[in-house]
Amino acid sequence: MTEPLSLSLSDIEAAAERIAPHARVTPVLESETLNAQLGAQVFCKAEMLQRTGAFKFRGACNAIAQLSDEERQRGVLTYSSGNHGQAISRAAALFGVEATVIMPTDAPTIKMNATRHWGATIVEYDRYNETRPEVAERVMAESEGPPPLLIPPYDHPGVMAGQGTVGLELARQVPDLDMVFVCLGGGGLLSGVATAVKAMNPDVHVVGVEPETGDDHRQSRAAGQRVSLPAVPRTIADGQQTLAPGEHTWPITDRLTDTFTAATDDELISTMRLIFDQFKVVAEPSGACALAGAIHRGLIEPGMRVGVTLSGGNVDPTAFADWINR
Amino acid sequence: MTEPLSLSLSDIEAAAERIAPHARVTPVLESETLNAQLGAQVFCKAEMLQRTGAFKFRGACNAIAQLSDEERQRGVLTYSSGNHGQAISRAAALFGVEATVIMPTDAPTIKMNATRHWGATIVEYDRYNETRPEVAERVMAESEGPPPLLIPPYDHPGVMAGQGTVGLELARQVPDLDMVFVCLGGGGLLSGVATAVKAMNPDVHVVGVEPETGDDHRQSRAAGQRVSLPAVPRTIADGQQTLAPGEHTWPITDRLTDTFTAATDDELISTMRLIFDQFKVVAEPSGACALAGAIHRGLIEPGMRVGVTLSGGNVDPTAFADWINR
Repeated sequence: MTEPLSLSLSDIEAAAERIAPHARVTPVLESETLNAQLGAQVFCKAEMLQRTGAFKFRGACNAIAQLSDEERQRGVLTYSSGNHGQAISRAAALFGVEATVIMPTDAPTIKMNATRHWGATIVEYDRYNETRPEVAERVMAESEGPPPLLIPPYDHPGVMAGQGTVGLELARQVPDLDMVFVCLGGGGLLSGVATAVKAMNPDVHVVGVEPETGDDHRQSRAAGQRVSLPAVPRTIADGQQTLAPGEHTWPITDRLTDTFTAATDDELISTMRLIFDQFKVVAEPSGACALAGAIHRGLIEPGMRVGVTLSGGNVDPTAFADWINR
Repeated sequence: MTEPLSLSLSDIEAAAERIAPHARVTPVLESETLNAQLGAQVFCKAEMLQRTGAFKFRGACNAIAQLSDEERQRGVLTYSSGNHGQAISRAAALFGVEATVIMPTDAPTIKMNATRHWGATIVEYDRYNETRPEVAERVMAESEGPPPLLIPPYDHPGVMAGQGTVGLELARQVPDLDMVFVCLGGGGLLSGVATAVKAMNPDVHVVGVEPETGDDHRQSRAAGQRVSLPAVPRTIADGQQTLAPGEHTWPITDRLTDTFTAATDDELISTMRLIFDQFKVVAEPSGACALAGAIHRGLIEPGMRVGVTLSGGNVDPTAFADWINR
């Protein structure tokens, strides 16, 4: 067992300064209609308006910005079928660093193209016969010079601190929040946001929201230890199909999260439609998960001030058209 | 002929102060991919994120905020099948003013519901047998006390000054713009935005963009006088189906607009899709019109800094799903 990683508000403040020249300060959106429906004030942090369309750019940028010159020359490596891969590809190009992204052969073309668009080399693998760490080891072993540095999607201090800037910005934009709902996959975003908002106000109630079929954090909380799901969960929330809480994120998310809860695919779909109707922005299923939990789990009390992460908007137009049109 | 109405930067600055407690300062969005495609920097003013989902709230709010107590007691009246009606309904409710909105019997249910939602009374009329001014006169004649005040969609000094705050904000958010593209129907937004941005920088090139089939401003410029179209133009841009430039807006838009141009429905559709893909926000057809002109008319030169209004996002989900999915 690795030593638990520490993450503090000052790490996140340093990350915010580091990424400021590259990342966007995303706006906080409100809907009068939703506020009236919930009897509360809901402030949505619109990370689909972040560079590359998701919060993931923050963590990738912070991790790469911290590399030494020698490390930058070695390049970076990651595995991701989604937003983290695009974020690493874009951030690496900004710093003149070569990036390799390991993606399953059957990843959506749209996501492969977006990752390739910013300059990363894609290494495809057969996800039914190899695991991602195996492929990563192979890529590192096959490199001619010193191997590239691995920047995994969430279990990484620079990534976690970078994602935490979502919470830092939100708390600065909206003081006196009573409750914060965060989209939850491996725990990168939640570990960072919870660290930031709890440091700024220990009384804020932090809620992590997973897809109903992929509730490994909720199960881990109930079991008192990290629990792994037996198989990749079936859900439309393709950014949240992790099998278990991250090794490094879990000690932090477990300590700082007041409630782990979940949302069904039907709730994600109706929430994407609500975000379209009321907020006029595009949310992908994983990006709507926190708001779905805020709307459907009955945790919000009248008069509360509630922060919600809308974490990304990278979604296939055909699927999106179907979902908003049901 | 009525005396030409004056509109100055100070009118617009006063409007900005007046609406500040109620309206949102909307963010300016960028797409790296679009910038690379055009070889320029394009700054999109995201008015779909304005209250009621369109810039129209600014003008409605400014007009109603200027009413005296006696006028507020009389209530307000307007005709609009779209965003201006919703904006008047919402703004009137904020000031405790009764609002009546004249809408055609066959207006989309979604727009009628949104207008009714904020409290306005809807008066329906048969648009094939009556004109809107006739219905407005009838409503005013039938009122028991002093008649309500008419706040038309664009030919009104308070409305024009309110819409101008879009330009004032944009120029403050993005200094040194070379060119500004504005969505153009009756000319309320264009008259205000052109007044603001030209007063702040006389060298900025202002472009008004109409739907191709409803190019009454372009025709009027060519004829040297206001020209009326023979029939309501067929276009998906339902916010821009005006027959002629406004009586009060035209002297201003004619004087301050460098180029009148137009975009086809196909260009509006591909631009809505681009806004979905690259900006992750929802634009209605009329809301995409200025960007369609910026992309397709070849007016932008390399290295330019270009402002664009994305004017609204109130669109039927079924139609939107069809458009982004072509």
